[in-house]
Amino acid sequence: MQFASSRTITRKMAKPCLTFFFGFIALSAIVEASQCSIKGLPLVRNIGELPQDNYGRGGLSHITVAGSVLHGMKEVEVWLQTFAPGSRTPIHRHSCEEVFVVLKGSGTLYLASGSHEKYPGKPQEFKIYSNSTFHIPVNDAHQVWNSNEDEDLQMLVIISRPPVKVYVYIRGLVHAAHCSKIEVPVLLG
Amino acid sequence: MQFASSRTITRKMAKPCLTFFFGFIALSAIVEASQCSIKGLPLVRNIGELPQDNYGRGGLSHITVAGSVLHGMKEVEVWLQTFAPGSRTPIHRHSCEEVFVVLKGSGTLYLASGSHEKYPGKPQEFKIYSNSTFHIPVNDAHQVWNSNEDEDLQMLVIISRPPVKVYVYIRGLVHAAHCSKIEVPVLLG
Repeated sequence: MQFASSRTITRKMAKPCLTFFFGFIALSAIVEASQCSIKGLPLVRNIGELPQDNYGRGGLSHITVAGSVLHGMKEVEVWLQTFAPGSRTPIHRHSCEEVFVVLKGSGTLYLASGSHEKYPGKPQEFKIYSNSTFHIPVNDAHQVWNSNEDEDLQMLVIISRPPVKVYVYIRGLVHAAHCSKIEVPVLLG
Repeated sequence: MQFASSRTITRKMAKPCLTFFFGFIALSAIVEASQCSIKGLPLVRNIGELPQDNYGRGGLSHITVAGSVLHGMKEVEVWLQTFAPGSRTPIHRHSCEEVFVVLKGSGTLYLASGSHEKYPGKPQEFKIYSNSTFHIPVNDAHQVWNSNEDEDLQMLVIISRPPVKVYVYIRGLVHAAHCSKIEVPVLLG
């Protein structure tokens, strides 16, 4: 499947489960999926119906799938990001782990291993593609670019230690340190 | 897209990126995607080529997409799990955050909120479906079941604090506490 970033998706309801499994299930109370968990939001959420924004960055669609502010996450946060052809993240680093899972499209990762200083350092270039995964070591400068002219690049992004604090490089120097009080990545540059 | 859990997937190579972006890119060194990162593994990995196992549990396919033992993750771990129709996790709990993203299929989640004791407590039942997401609060007893007779249930699973330590309920009681020294979920019961 491809995740839809629009609200046009029809929610597919699961078939009723009529099978029961010893004591645990015997105690079960059937509730609607709209049952609230945190801050009035349903526990099970349709990703196609979640808010999306580009935060002023052309070509980006960002959806917070599970976040610290909206959903009370304390240790991990999950985003769905879609980059139109030619669009990209800024060169940046952050003091958390980050895992990418490419759902659709292809592109290029620039990664400057061991670059925890004022300058981003010399990056290596990696091809990324549908059904691939990669992770960014803590504080390594990096940039993800949709270098495929024909297709969106869609990825699930997982970070630790939310909300993320991002340092962005502009013209080769660390330009800004920004702590995202809201649960979106800082996409300056 | 659907993630393939077999090794039959053809790796899609991205088109070469010929665009450059000021200082960062001017310094870039083009390397192969097979460049090693940790323990001889490539940084960018084809999920369709990663090892899969069922750990003795019928109907399960488990792939560690990014893990503590294999890939050096310290704060988050990502799995791709596929459950054949009728198969399920045991009733269990763990002291970490867990986020699910349903890529394919549908099923049922049983969740006993606030159940951190000897007994799993009274669960609620939620329908889960393709393109949905949900998370399990720390230490809440839960079970995920592929209750759709016609289709596999495939999910990306994200946990914090790897490797996971799982407590499994058998016949309504906590039966075993098992610390997974290897980076796979304990799927007893």
